[in-house]
Amino acid sequence: MNYTERVNQHLDRYLSNQGSLTEAMRYSVLSGGKRFRPILTYTVANTFGTSLDLADSSACAVELIHAYSLIHDDLPAMDDDDIRHNQPACHKKFGEAQAILTGDGLQALAFEVLASDQLLPTKTRINTLQALTHAAFEMAEGQSIDLGVASKTIGIETLKNMHRKKTGALLSCSVQLGVLVSGCSNEDAQILNQFSEHIGLAYQIQDDVLDVLTPEEVLGKKQHSDIDKNKPTYPSLLGLSESKAEYESLYQQAFSSLGELSVDTTKLQALTKRLQSRAF
Amino acid sequence: MNYTERVNQHLDRYLSNQGSLTEAMRYSVLSGGKRFRPILTYTVANTFGTSLDLADSSACAVELIHAYSLIHDDLPAMDDDDIRHNQPACHKKFGEAQAILTGDGLQALAFEVLASDQLLPTKTRINTLQALTHAAFEMAEGQSIDLGVASKTIGIETLKNMHRKKTGALLSCSVQLGVLVSGCSNEDAQILNQFSEHIGLAYQIQDDVLDVLTPEEVLGKKQHSDIDKNKPTYPSLLGLSESKAEYESLYQQAFSSLGELSVDTTKLQALTKRLQSRAF
Repeated sequence: MNYTERVNQHLDRYLSNQGSLTEAMRYSVLSGGKRFRPILTYTVANTFGTSLDLADSSACAVELIHAYSLIHDDLPAMDDDDIRHNQPACHKKFGEAQAILTGDGLQALAFEVLASDQLLPTKTRINTLQALTHAAFEMAEGQSIDLGVASKTIGIETLKNMHRKKTGALLSCSVQLGVLVSGCSNEDAQILNQFSEHIGLAYQIQDDVLDVLTPEEVLGKKQHSDIDKNKPTYPSLLGLSESKAEYESLYQQAFSSLGELSVDTTKLQALTKRLQSRAF
Repeated sequence: MNYTERVNQHLDRYLSNQGSLTEAMRYSVLSGGKRFRPILTYTVANTFGTSLDLADSSACAVELIHAYSLIHDDLPAMDDDDIRHNQPACHKKFGEAQAILTGDGLQALAFEVLASDQLLPTKTRINTLQALTHAAFEMAEGQSIDLGVASKTIGIETLKNMHRKKTGALLSCSVQLGVLVSGCSNEDAQILNQFSEHIGLAYQIQDDVLDVLTPEEVLGKKQHSDIDKNKPTYPSLLGLSESKAEYESLYQQAFSSLGELSVDTTKLQALTKRLQSRAF
């Protein structure tokens, strides 16, 4: 069973009996998604020889936070996107009110899943909760900055700060949770922290580029949505080729970080290559 | 310093530096509110002679969850209320998108506050997080049921279940967090659990009644909002006088529960009387 199947199986279980929100939660969470965040968590844990059982709750929690953020981002008052994962967005299927509540419920559930994982020592659970609550907050703040700067002229540093929070924080946290459940050395933890910051920022710049280059049916959502909304992006500030160079450079730095780890990083390298070469 | 001042001081501190969401968070959280939930938490902790320092994070966390829920409830897609605490609702002041994100950020912050409280043993922090994440989930589910039953004919048991989740869960949790930080006996904890369920349900029935009876300027929000939205309520199902009798009976059961505790309950009795006689 690969990591995607593994996290899907656990998500399915967590979402099997959540009362009146079950249907909308399952529709949004189980209908698709690349599962990059949980795969990061599993791969880091596996890199240190940690049982994947100890990473299941973290893997599910980061995906639940990601899923909630997509539901809220798609709302008419936010990015107003009608299609997600090649199907009607949650609010198109269930209405805006239920979509807001589905997102709210998923956020609470993500933290409940971590707090309730009996396999993890309480100290580890607290550490993962501190990391994920903070990342979730930063994600909301990043999205708030994003909406505030539409149609405005901003500098590259403001854009970078926004991207770090909006997308980078949760991606970094996915790596960090893998570190926390594995209990690796402080040195390795610090190296992976750098690694996670590089791929977190690279991922979002790449997203901006893919939004320009990738057709709708491959993205699974609307193409050119940034341009349509007058959002400042890396391509709009630096141009396409310099943006590509920027994220390629960040991926190179990520590979360099991996080279410093005390353990075999074959799988983390393969995953980073997969991120680097993604088409959507 | 009374409990309201105490929780306000701590909320002010937590909301002093939260980046781009700070202004909207402070506007919504610090502008008013009865603070019944944190007062419950403090009063329970105090009843067992527990230092209030240990209850500060719980008191803030329950209020932050309550505040986020009000922001989302007031949204046009939800209850569509323009006034809250006698001022424009968050979305009227900052726009819908920022209001959604302000609520999202407050929910994450509530759990971060608990996870990061260094004064509490990790085991206690986990217990409070399990309780609050679960209550927050139930609250979202209760609101989802509430929106789903508008204009529908439902029975009293469905209404009671909805009320328990929508309002009762977080009120009960406020008591429960006081119990958890105080580390009282299992017997007392069970009695307070019953107590909290009685006042949780009583509070919401009373809310339904007050929505019919109390003028707008006293409520600090729109009167008759339930009737306007065709929401089934206790008064619409049972009539006003039977609804009053119902919540009075629940408060009496709450007082009875208090009588069974092993400690002096003067302050909890006084607080329950205050809830019982509230005008808004």
